Amino acid sequence: MEKGRILLAVTGFHPQRWRELLSAEREVVLEPDGASDPSISYAVVWKQKPNLLSKLPNLRAIFSIGAGVDHIFADPGLPEVPIVKVVADNLTQYMTEYVVWRVLDHHRQGMLYQAQQKKKTWHEPPQRPAGDISVGIMGLGNLGRAAASVLLSLGFAVNGWSRSEHPMKGVSTYAGDAGLIPFLNATDMLVVLLPLTTQTQGIVNYGLLKELRKRNGLGGSVLINAGRGRLQKDADILRALEDGTLKEASLDVFEVEPLPKTSPLWAHPKVFVTPHAAATSDPVHLVPIMLRQMAAYERGEKLENLVDRKAGY
Amino acid sequence: MEKGRILLAVTGFHPQRWRELLSAEREVVLEPDGASDPSISYAVVWKQKPNLLSKLPNLRAIFSIGAGVDHIFADPGLPEVPIVKVVADNLTQYMTEYVVWRVLDHHRQGMLYQAQQKKKTWHEPPQRPAGDISVGIMGLGNLGRAAASVLLSLGFAVNGWSRSEHPMKGVSTYAGDAGLIPFLNATDMLVVLLPLTTQTQGIVNYGLLKELRKRNGLGGSVLINAGRGRLQKDADILRALEDGTLKEASLDVFEVEPLPKTSPLWAHPKVFVTPHAAATSDPVHLVPIMLRQMAAYERGEKLENLVDRKAGY
Ligand SMILES: NC(=O)c1ccc[n+]([C@@H]2O[C@H](COP(=O)([O-])OP(=O)(O)OC[C@H]3O[C@@H](n4cnc5c(N)ncnc54)[C@H](OP(=O)(O)O)[C@@H]3O)[C@@H](O)[C@H]2O)c1
Ligand SMILES: NC(=O)c1ccc[n+]([C@@H]2O[C@H](COP(=O)([O-])OP(=O)(O)OC[C@H]3O[C@@H](n4cnc5c(N)ncnc54)[C@H](OP(=O)(O)O)[C@@H]3O)[C@@H](O)[C@H]2O)c1
Repeated sequence: MEKGRILLAVTGFHPQRWRELLSAEREVVLEPDGASDPSISYAVVWKQKPNLLSKLPNLRAIFSIGAGVDHIFADPGLPEVPIVKVVADNLTQYMTEYVVWRVLDHHRQGMLYQAQQKKKTWHEPPQRPAGDISVGIMGLGNLGRAAASVLLSLGFAVNGWSRSEHPMKGVSTYAGDAGLIPFLNATDMLVVLLPLTTQTQGIVNYGLLKELRKRNGLGGSVLINAGRGRLQKDADILRALEDGTLKEASLDVFEVEPLPKTSPLWAHPKVFVTPHAAATSDPVHLVPIMLRQMAAYERGEKLENLVDRKAGY
Repeated sequence: MEKGRILLAVTGFHPQRWRELLSAEREVVLEPDGASDPSISYAVVWKQKPNLLSKLPNLRAIFSIGAGVDHIFADPGLPEVPIVKVVADNLTQYMTEYVVWRVLDHHRQGMLYQAQQKKKTWHEPPQRPAGDISVGIMGLGNLGRAAASVLLSLGFAVNGWSRSEHPMKGVSTYAGDAGLIPFLNATDMLVVLLPLTTQTQGIVNYGLLKELRKRNGLGGSVLINAGRGRLQKDADILRALEDGTLKEASLDVFEVEPLPKTSPLWAHPKVFVTPHAAATSDPVHLVPIMLRQMAAYERGEKLENLVDRKAGY
């Protein structure tokens, strides 16, 4: 197969660095150039403009710049070519750091200690061992499994929920609709690492949060969402924090991003906000993986980490 | 050997729970009772009163309630009997949690994100991968080694400094006086897990902090002290924060505890204060270990985890 050209089509940030690094091996055309260009074989995209890709007559595959492909499916005219997910050690490590950081901060009572420091209060509250806390990971994919393994090494009990059954050593796994309530009922801290699909949209709502385990001595359940904002209902999280269903939350993603200044989440004393920064796509690490896949494909090998179009992730 | 009685001698907290649990297997006398009592074989202590233990004619061994035995050596009339350190999975896990939590919070820019949240600023600062950061652990003993292994699994580069040479897989180790400057020069984040001895007192001073590595792009070095307060000079840490030698610090211990309300550390925006709570001694986990050691000793076995009196730890 002949060496294909790349269309780089992104919204929301400047793709200069991606362009430079991709150009080391292939010709790169930057959208809005390249419309309907028959010489384009690959699209490297983040929130591409609707109906742009369907006009490329010789497109072979679409590569996502970030983990999560909901931004690609938002295009009503998405052509029927393979879509390649990002799977990269670098991205996985960043997400593991974020999850372990937030789990430990809630577990070790970071918010309480900060409030005490402000008042110059020297007081040691009771502290439970990690083994008393069940961290439940919704979405036990590449990212969920990596985070689970470090949480296990810290001594936490870990539960995982996925669409299909996958056993994982040391983790209590639950699957599908039938497994959801049992999974939540056994979970003290919920970590959301699901993809956004028609099935998962809005899943983190008040009813779901109500199912989290309530145990004396732990002071309430905790939510950590680093998946996608539209998995959650911001208003339901606020309601759950107000009535004690939730004790605290760490949110990296929101229904509307950037989070509007009017959102009460910004100033809520029990919420820790980050700007969709849990695991940033670094072109230095991701571009070589994409270029390697394109070259392998042209030698006749299969593309790896393909999206299941029917499942939507 | 006949079954010995225990003297429980503590200052600063109520030993009720320790007494109950020790009493399950042996007779326990609570100080101030038991002075000069010939039937006492073991002392279980935390900051015992000076010259108390030397008056017990048949004392066989002293057990420390916490990791660290500087509180025992503060006694000028300490008798020449074996001193047993605490080594317990539970305590080690707590310390690992604390270290990993604080390292991640500095690495993932928790202080910056909190300041941004206060101003409702949605901005993603550059983030380096963990592999770009060297965490240097001063004191590669039971606690230091356990923390090192989780930090390695998160991808950090790890250095370790100890009195004698001990290789550890994946860790760059340095030893003794000759190793100190090279260790500091290769360290971005310093984690102090040393015991307090005549050799280590005041070691974390301005001159030492000046030796930490300064690298562009990391925004400055970080200090985390969870060893003992008198290892550090509070005033030197403040000076280092003021002039940019240090970027941030997490301090669990202080020269004077409780930290006086007048200390500028409380309100410093780059300091995270906890009240000597990194790894609390939980009698539920530690008492069975002590009781097991006493029984083994009476069967003629050796005491484990003995303090080296000359080294002072
Ligand atoms: N905040 C950030 O900075 C950031 C960065 C990167 C990624 N992300 C998000 O993280 C998500 C996960 O990434 P990943 O690489 O781990 O994805 P992945 O490997 O595709 O794993 C997705 C997991 O979710 C499960 N799942 C999907 N639909 C489900 C459903 N309806 N019910 C139950 N489980 C379902 C899957 O189940 P099966 O195992 O049965 O397929 C799988 O375990 C991405 O989609 C993205 O949205 C966020
Ligand atoms: N903040 C808290 O809540 C809390 C809780 C528990 C413990 N701690 C503190 O943590 C300390 C460490 O505990 P641990 O159980 O890990 O102790 P440990 O097993 O005795 O290890 C002590 C380490 O420090 C090294 N060291 C001692 N003196 C040194 C010197 N002069 N120069 C260089 N290295 C020196 C030792 O070197 P070698 O390996 O060569 O002997 C060893 O690696 C305790 O002493 C205590 O002060 C604090």
